[in-house]
Amino acid sequence: MQVPQFPDILKAYSRIKPVVRRTAVIESSSMNRLFKAQLFFKCEHQQKAGAFKFRGATNAVLSLSENAAQKGVATHSSGNHAAALALAASMRGIPAYIVMPESAPEIKVKTVEQFGGSITFCEPTLEAREKTLERLVAETGAAFIHPYNNFQVICGQGTAAIELIEETGTLDVVMAPVGGGGLLSGTALSVKHLLPQCNVIAGEPKMADDACRSLKAGQIIPSTYPDTIADGLRTSLGELPFSIMRNQVDDILTASEDAIKAAMVLLRNHVGILAEPSSAVPLAALMENRALFEGKRIGIIISGGNLNPDKYEFLKE
Amino acid sequence: MQVPQFPDILKAYSRIKPVVRRTAVIESSSMNRLFKAQLFFKCEHQQKAGAFKFRGATNAVLSLSENAAQKGVATHSSGNHAAALALAASMRGIPAYIVMPESAPEIKVKTVEQFGGSITFCEPTLEAREKTLERLVAETGAAFIHPYNNFQVICGQGTAAIELIEETGTLDVVMAPVGGGGLLSGTALSVKHLLPQCNVIAGEPKMADDACRSLKAGQIIPSTYPDTIADGLRTSLGELPFSIMRNQVDDILTASEDAIKAAMVLLRNHVGILAEPSSAVPLAALMENRALFEGKRIGIIISGGNLNPDKYEFLKE
Repeated sequence: MQVPQFPDILKAYSRIKPVVRRTAVIESSSMNRLFKAQLFFKCEHQQKAGAFKFRGATNAVLSLSENAAQKGVATHSSGNHAAALALAASMRGIPAYIVMPESAPEIKVKTVEQFGGSITFCEPTLEAREKTLERLVAETGAAFIHPYNNFQVICGQGTAAIELIEETGTLDVVMAPVGGGGLLSGTALSVKHLLPQCNVIAGEPKMADDACRSLKAGQIIPSTYPDTIADGLRTSLGELPFSIMRNQVDDILTASEDAIKAAMVLLRNHVGILAEPSSAVPLAALMENRALFEGKRIGIIISGGNLNPDKYEFLKE
Repeated sequence: MQVPQFPDILKAYSRIKPVVRRTAVIESSSMNRLFKAQLFFKCEHQQKAGAFKFRGATNAVLSLSENAAQKGVATHSSGNHAAALALAASMRGIPAYIVMPESAPEIKVKTVEQFGGSITFCEPTLEAREKTLERLVAETGAAFIHPYNNFQVICGQGTAAIELIEETGTLDVVMAPVGGGGLLSGTALSVKHLLPQCNVIAGEPKMADDACRSLKAGQIIPSTYPDTIADGLRTSLGELPFSIMRNQVDDILTASEDAIKAAMVLLRNHVGILAEPSSAVPLAALMENRALFEGKRIGIIISGGNLNPDKYEFLKE
C-alpha cells in the first residue's frame, strides 16, 4: 500500500488546478465574536459539482494513462463522489459507470445523469453494489475509483487545504469532517507539511463515531448502524486514509445531532453558507468544545452544499 | 405623499425583527487584496424567500390593521416581491393575490404557489397587469402592496442597512443596487441617520440607467427598453423612493453587462456567494470605478440569490 506524501499532493494540485475552482475563504466578525476565535471558512460547497469530491475525482481521472482513460472510470456511490466522478470523466471525454442502489433519491440520480454518468442500478445492499461494480469493471475495463480509499483521490482532496493556507497564512487549527477519511487524510498531509505546528482536528457525528473510536483503538472499527443527519459521514474508514490519519491527525471530536443542526443554522445566519449536514459537523464539534478553541485562528473546510433546504424544518426560521 | 423618516424604519425593524432573518455580514481577504479596500457583504440572498424583499413585504403585511389584513394583500410582480409577499401573507395567515403575466417562468410561478400565493394570470402587458390587479382589489378588498412605491415597503427595506452597520461599525460607503428604488431609498435613510459621513452609492446596469439619468435630471425618467442580465433592475423608479433618493443618495454608478457577469463570478469565487445578476451590480460598478473606493471601508448589500446557475454559461467555470 503506497501512502501519499506532500509532494504527491503538489503534483495533484498542478494537475487539477486548471480544472477545479479555487473556492473562497471567508470570515464573519459576528461568528468570531460568538466563538472568541478567528474562523476562516473554505467554501468547497461552491466547488464544481457542489463538493470537495471534485478535486479527488478530477485528480484520479487525470492521472490515468491515455489507454486506461479510454476505457472509462467506475464507482459505486449515491453521493457527491458519484456526481464528481461523472463530471470529471465528462470533462476528459471518457465514460463514467456509476453503480447506484435502486433506492437512491431521484435528485441524486438526476445529478449524475446531468453530468453524463452512465448509471447501473442494483439492489440496495453492499453485496449487490460490489458485485454489480465488479461485473461492470470486468465488462468495460473501466478503472475503479474508490471514493476515499484511493491514492490519487486523497491527493486531490489535500489541495483544498493548500488553498486555505495560501489565503490565511498561519493557523492554529484546521478542521474537516471525517467519513471515509479521504478529505481528512489529504488535509492532514498538506497542513502538517505547510504548518507543522498547526493541529488537525476532525469533526464526526456522535451517532457515527467509528473514526474517533478507530483512532483511539489503533485499528479500523467499522461503522455500525450510523444514524445521523450527516449522511455523507455514515461510511466506515478506508485503510489508506486511516494509515495517514494515525500519524497526522491530532484529534477527532464528536458532535451531537442537535449541535449539527445548530451549526447549519449558524453557518446560514452568520456566514451566509448553506451547508449540507456533513459540512456543519466540524463547527458543531467546535461548538461542543469551545474552550479548546478560544483565542485561536481556525480554518474550517466546508465540504459540500448539496442539500435540499426544504427537507430541514429547522432551516426555515 | 408621506415620506418615511428614520424613526419609521426603526418602528419597522421592531415590527419585523421576530420574523425576518438577521442575515450574515461576511468578508474575504482575497477580495480586500483585489480591490485594496475593506469590503463587507450583507447576505440578503440568504433572507427568507431569497431576497431583501421579504423585509418590506413583511413590514407592509404586519402594518395592516386586523380588519384590513383579513381581506388580504395583492400585487403584480413576477419576481422576488411576489414570492416575498406571498410568504409574508401566509405567515400572518391571510391571502395574497398575485397577478402574473402568462409568460412568467414556471419556476417563479411555482415559488409563489409554494408560499401559498393565489395567482391570477394576465396578458404580458403593463395595461393587462394593472387592470387585472384593479379588478382583484375591487373584488376582494385586498390591500395593494406596491413592490417599491410604498411607505411601509421602503421602511422594511431600510432595516438591512441597520443590521449591516451594527456588524461593521463605521463605513465610508454603503452600496446597493437600484431598480424601482425601494432598497436604495430605505438604505439611504438608515445610513445617513446612523453614519452621516458615509456615502450612499447605488449600482445600476448601464443598459438600464434610468435612475442615474433621473437623479441628474432631477425628475423621473422612465426606463425604456432596458436590456440587461440584471432582470430585477429593469423597472422604472417610483415617486416615493425618488423623493428620498434626491436628498440622500450621493451617486449612482453604472456597470456594463460584462462587469456584472464578472462580478457574479468574483462573488462566487472569492466570497462564496451565488448572487442573482441584480445583486452583483454594485460590485460591478465598484470594479469599473476602482480608484474611487481604494482604502475605504465599504458595505455592499447583496440583494438576492434567486437564480438558476445553469442558465449562465460563465458561471460554469
